[in-house]
Amino acid sequence: MKELEEKILREGEVFPGEILKVGSFLNQQIDVPFMMEMGQEVKRLFDGVPITKILTVESSGIAIGFAVAAAMGLPMVFAKKHKSLNLSADLLKSSVFSYTHRTSYDIVVSSEYISRHDVVLIVDDFLAQGNAILGLLDLCDQAGAKVAGAAVAIEKGFQGGGKMLREKGIRVESLAIVESMSDDSVIFKVQGNN
Amino acid sequence: MKELEEKILREGEVFPGEILKVGSFLNQQIDVPFMMEMGQEVKRLFDGVPITKILTVESSGIAIGFAVAAAMGLPMVFAKKHKSLNLSADLLKSSVFSYTHRTSYDIVVSSEYISRHDVVLIVDDFLAQGNAILGLLDLCDQAGAKVAGAAVAIEKGFQGGGKMLREKGIRVESLAIVESMSDDSVIFKVQGNN
Repeated sequence: MKELEEKILREGEVFPGEILKVGSFLNQQIDVPFMMEMGQEVKRLFDGVPITKILTVESSGIAIGFAVAAAMGLPMVFAKKHKSLNLSADLLKSSVFSYTHRTSYDIVVSSEYISRHDVVLIVDDFLAQGNAILGLLDLCDQAGAKVAGAAVAIEKGFQGGGKMLREKGIRVESLAIVESMSDDSVIFKVQGNN
Repeated sequence: MKELEEKILREGEVFPGEILKVGSFLNQQIDVPFMMEMGQEVKRLFDGVPITKILTVESSGIAIGFAVAAAMGLPMVFAKKHKSLNLSADLLKSSVFSYTHRTSYDIVVSSEYISRHDVVLIVDDFLAQGNAILGLLDLCDQAGAKVAGAAVAIEKGFQGGGKMLREKGIRVESLAIVESMSDDSVIFKVQGNN
């Protein structure tokens, strides 16, 4: 998505540890009208697929998940990162290793919100090592739900998560794929749908 | 908002500790098309107010904040609940006591995302004791931003937070105000705009 690549070049900042900071529009301040356009683009990419539900994980996945769900007119479910007092006992749970935070955490979702009747589209802001998406796939497996694929805003192509997921046969659509980045440049992979 | 009251009666569950569970549509599974309608209702309530930014707090405020921002065509900022590795050093910080979780936590937002030029509308899913909104007001004060008011989906009128905020002169708009609740009933306050 050309507009996203341009926005990353204009507003993104590269930090040590292969961190691309896009807090000005994607995951702390949200450019909501622009994110609604990103939702429309994901809708276009998955046109004709009988998706019933959007699944993401708190916190930074919620906004992009919402935008996709709004574009498609669907409900969204977000997995929580630990067991909360307000959740019922009947939970689906998976463990995720965070590359950014160098620690593991559990993601949980109430089993009443994903079922074997669902066709789920997994949505997240970033795809790096792919561990969060693996965890969300595991939750869908436990629920017996079908997975239509995964849609992410920004894929860090050089971190291998996208390759790993695609080799498993998962359809992965990324609105921008960063091929390499350094202090003063971000290089994108050319995609057919640009 | 009549449709919200009806949805609470249909899908909400009351748990011990004055907990109203609305996870099926408001804060774990999100009924996105309905939440977009809630965003439109908040837009209507604040019609004519020159708001520049929506401010909420992770995680359960993000979806309703996004819906309001989408209706108004504005950016949204969400405060995080602890210092994250990806945030810059320049943070606004406030401390919040959570009635639900019986513990205090910090909320932080990067100072670059709220400024003295902003007119902020605070948005959240629930208003109970009002502590989260007090924390968000404090962040706006620190930034020198004006606050247009607070909009929440569900106010627990019997927990006093709404009264406390209104007595401070904050405009508070709640799409549904629960006056009392028990295992088998939820009573709403009649509002002029219903």
